[in-house]
Amino acid sequence: MSLPSYFASYFELFATDGQARTGLLTTPHGAVRTPAFMPCGTAGAMKGVHWREVRDAGTDIVLGNTYHLMLRPGAERIAALGGLQNFTGWNGPMLTDSGGFQVMSLSELRKVNENAVTFRSHIDGARVELSPERSIEVQLLLGSDIAMQLDECVRLPAERGDIERAMQLSLRWAERSRRAFETAPPGYMLFGIVQGGDVAELRQASARGLIDIGFHGYAIGGLAVGEPQAVMLAMIDEVAPILPNDRPRYLMGVGTPEDMIEAVGRGIDMFDCVMPTRNGRHGVAFTRFGQINLRNARHADDPRPLDEESPWPSTRSCSRAYLHHLVKSGETLGAMLLSEINIAYYQHLMHGIREAVSQGAFESFRERTRADWAKGDIASDIVPR
Amino acid sequence: MSLPSYFASYFELFATDGQARTGLLTTPHGAVRTPAFMPCGTAGAMKGVHWREVRDAGTDIVLGNTYHLMLRPGAERIAALGGLQNFTGWNGPMLTDSGGFQVMSLSELRKVNENAVTFRSHIDGARVELSPERSIEVQLLLGSDIAMQLDECVRLPAERGDIERAMQLSLRWAERSRRAFETAPPGYMLFGIVQGGDVAELRQASARGLIDIGFHGYAIGGLAVGEPQAVMLAMIDEVAPILPNDRPRYLMGVGTPEDMIEAVGRGIDMFDCVMPTRNGRHGVAFTRFGQINLRNARHADDPRPLDEESPWPSTRSCSRAYLHHLVKSGETLGAMLLSEINIAYYQHLMHGIREAVSQGAFESFRERTRADWAKGDIASDIVPR
Repeated sequence: MSLPSYFASYFELFATDGQARTGLLTTPHGAVRTPAFMPCGTAGAMKGVHWREVRDAGTDIVLGNTYHLMLRPGAERIAALGGLQNFTGWNGPMLTDSGGFQVMSLSELRKVNENAVTFRSHIDGARVELSPERSIEVQLLLGSDIAMQLDECVRLPAERGDIERAMQLSLRWAERSRRAFETAPPGYMLFGIVQGGDVAELRQASARGLIDIGFHGYAIGGLAVGEPQAVMLAMIDEVAPILPNDRPRYLMGVGTPEDMIEAVGRGIDMFDCVMPTRNGRHGVAFTRFGQINLRNARHADDPRPLDEESPWPSTRSCSRAYLHHLVKSGETLGAMLLSEINIAYYQHLMHGIREAVSQGAFESFRERTRADWAKGDIASDIVPR
Repeated sequence: MSLPSYFASYFELFATDGQARTGLLTTPHGAVRTPAFMPCGTAGAMKGVHWREVRDAGTDIVLGNTYHLMLRPGAERIAALGGLQNFTGWNGPMLTDSGGFQVMSLSELRKVNENAVTFRSHIDGARVELSPERSIEVQLLLGSDIAMQLDECVRLPAERGDIERAMQLSLRWAERSRRAFETAPPGYMLFGIVQGGDVAELRQASARGLIDIGFHGYAIGGLAVGEPQAVMLAMIDEVAPILPNDRPRYLMGVGTPEDMIEAVGRGIDMFDCVMPTRNGRHGVAFTRFGQINLRNARHADDPRPLDEESPWPSTRSCSRAYLHHLVKSGETLGAMLLSEINIAYYQHLMHGIREAVSQGAFESFRERTRADWAKGDIASDIVPR
């Protein structure tokens, strides 16, 4: 590795088990145990969940969306207010994305050229230009512990030519991002993003190009955007073995518990996803026995909690009947409870994964966990308490 | 007083100061310090606030709405699930209204006759009949610590003839409610409701009629329904002196902090209102310096909390800039924080009132509190921290 010292690794590997890894990533705002799941605090808030609950659920690090925050309340304003941690009251590590992905999915009239992406804000229609340099500037203003390079993400399926063009552009933007990041204070990190769609050799070329530039960590982007799970896992299999062992690997926008456990088995260390909160708002709980839709009428008279053995108080204490009532009545408290219950399940799963890898027992943990999911929910003819 | 022993008083007066009183009401699910503010857990949930926060804010008792709960999830279902406290997880005292008020304001095709009110559910259009007996049955099924008699509430302004007819009907329903309540387990309470609109002699007649029947407590209903504050206070002045000293007095649906402090000064012990949570959802905070609208752009860059001296953590720690951002962005967390902040302010005010009455200092407390409200918000040109 030929990285300058300020691109030193802040990542320490504690144990590996097959491809699965467990370790610790040290950021200016605290340590992150890996594999880590990052809940999404999109616009400076976790939807329906207090920060203290996010923390209590076992969360070490959360994700903020640069696109949302730069448009409202604005990066310069957040900087003047002391950065994202001071602003929001989340006093732990934060990773921000580059803004690129959401420019593609949310904004209007977007246009990508060599220099930057320009778009109209979905909030007020204002014309905004986001270059690799501006994305890094914004993320440094936000005070993000881990910044992401600006990239172009192509929705699958796509033509190989389009995938390759976007991948090459992302590599050039990676280099510009890295240069722009050289003013960052010590301890702050920048991750490069592997692109290349579902084409193995493009993925490999992207990874090699990023390693040549040198980053604190490597993300795999442009997956979980509509392709089958098998394609996603195949792409991880192509990329992970190339990536340096001493850097964290982050699979962006993933995913379900099933996706995460498979990806850990292929060497991934970090995840983010809106599913725990989004599905929670839609009345769905993630549990040891798979997803449970509380909207279903079979829960209406069921006094049992979702999982009596869960370490999370609400999972253990709220009855299915109450959660069903809250969801059916559109009570905010239903979304609040299910969102915290889901974040807690995700973090409990990560905790189990870390322990299993430490003990060299990841494979049996994965099998046991998958068997529980496959069982489905505990039968409703069990005698209520 | 000629009440049978099971209509004994569970209310103990600790101190009076002028007309203001402080005491303790003992219910099957715990004690209630008075004057008490009851936040509204309408359909078995406090909108945007966890029960533990409701409790931590200093709440002794909450209100549930019989109308909502009987329609969904249903009183028999809640009874089968162990009553409201088991169902919701709020393990403290609960008062339920009779359902009458919301039949008037929410349901369709309602028809009042001597026997009952019939209406169509606003949820599914089902035809429902609510008699005084059924209202008591429902409230006993819910396991409510304090049940309210069914009454007919007339919106002001109204003709004297209409007001009198409704008041007389309410008195007859009071008697039927009292009879229906004789099967209640010991410790549970039934309150009668004084009606009579804005007509002093009808109010007095209503109060005397109720006292003849005999209740555990007396509510004043049909106020804060559109009349000026002066009319409301005048009606309290007519009624409160008639009510027995050893029974709690509950002013229904009131109100603003200003309303409550004036009503305490006229001998009221209990209040309920949706304002703390409703105004919170609309971006308004109740504070020592009056109401503050966080939607206002002047808060956008203000790092100061709402009140540095508040005992409530979120009031002391969340910046105005963050609250403004959350409100403007429509983030649920904004409504959640402002709702808990407002409940905490209401309970802190009640705490101050109770202490002041105990110390014979209610009048100076009222003056000081009103002076702080009148000052308005702390100037925004104060040097930020």
